[in-house]
Amino acid sequence: MTSTGDSGSEGAGGKDGDRRAQLVDAAVDHVAAHGIGDLSLRGLGAAIGVSHRMLIHYFGSKEQLLVEIVRASEQRQRDLLSRLRAEPGVSPVDAARLLWRQLTDPQLANQERLFFEIYGQALRGRPEAVPVLDNLVTDWLEPLVAAEVTAGSDPATAHNRARLGLATVRGLLLDLLATGDREGVDAAMEEFFRLYYGPG
Amino acid sequence: MTSTGDSGSEGAGGKDGDRRAQLVDAAVDHVAAHGIGDLSLRGLGAAIGVSHRMLIHYFGSKEQLLVEIVRASEQRQRDLLSRLRAEPGVSPVDAARLLWRQLTDPQLANQERLFFEIYGQALRGRPEAVPVLDNLVTDWLEPLVAAEVTAGSDPATAHNRARLGLATVRGLLLDLLATGDREGVDAAMEEFFRLYYGPG
Repeated sequence: MTSTGDSGSEGAGGKDGDRRAQLVDAAVDHVAAHGIGDLSLRGLGAAIGVSHRMLIHYFGSKEQLLVEIVRASEQRQRDLLSRLRAEPGVSPVDAARLLWRQLTDPQLANQERLFFEIYGQALRGRPEAVPVLDNLVTDWLEPLVAAEVTAGSDPATAHNRARLGLATVRGLLLDLLATGDREGVDAAMEEFFRLYYGPG
Repeated sequence: MTSTGDSGSEGAGGKDGDRRAQLVDAAVDHVAAHGIGDLSLRGLGAAIGVSHRMLIHYFGSKEQLLVEIVRASEQRQRDLLSRLRAEPGVSPVDAARLLWRQLTDPQLANQERLFFEIYGQALRGRPEAVPVLDNLVTDWLEPLVAAEVTAGSDPATAHNRARLGLATVRGLLLDLLATGDREGVDAAMEEFFRLYYGPG
């Protein structure tokens, strides 16, 4: 349980937004630790120390909160990518390997299952999930393209490589979550790194 | 509408199995043409010319029929891969390019949306979808590994490459279905082919 209190939530503008972001953050932590299962807004509220009424106030529905959890999880992963890129002396393949190790941490499995569920629902046009589609790819392309350009790719190639890298990570995460074959999936990712960054 | 009639469905053993396979086939065609939307068993039955009662008899529930549709769609794609590999004078990269072109045919988009939805549901542990997880990766590895070995890879590398190829295709399909950016996704796939098969 992550207590976030329940005060200040009626503040206007930025304060309301901050509070909303705090709640999403607490919800992401809760999902990471406990999964979603048949979680209700009431149960989630109790777990993160906020009333059901407040969750409705901020998110409207459970489905919309789940979409926000997915968005926040994705943002955390991009923040991690930024930190890895900023580390001195970390080569592109080292940064990619570190990111992959983090993404495949069993602690993230619940968030990633939720990610693929919401993605699938959005593709099928479920109204609450559809808004998430807008940024599922594009939000990643900007930092990934920048990383590729920094590493020496021309812009067109950087764009293709960024898109390819994102797709391969997602495809191998789908594999890992379905099969649980950590060793096999890691070996496939190493094969990708070899092709993508050259034999190290 | 694909009429499949409604007779012979009480036959035992193989005949029952044949009839079931016919119904799945008709359902796959229907989904390809019309999508799933809020399809009911009653609506699907009417569309493919079979009673609601018969669909329940063969599949138990709509969810189980959807799982069978996903399985059959996947099998069709593997059959296509086999045919492409058997064509004389088609190089591995040509076969891969032809397969990719087929998989990204807008006609398959509905099936693929359904595929990712069921995959996501299965990862979240929804009981009707879970059985599909067993073969989502492994059914593909056998033919893909065989293709890689034929093309000259040693068995360990063939396994890694097979797994990587499957993941990349799925990741780029996820991208295409979310963004609709055909040109961008195709360019990323061409970058993959270049890395995977060498500059041609």
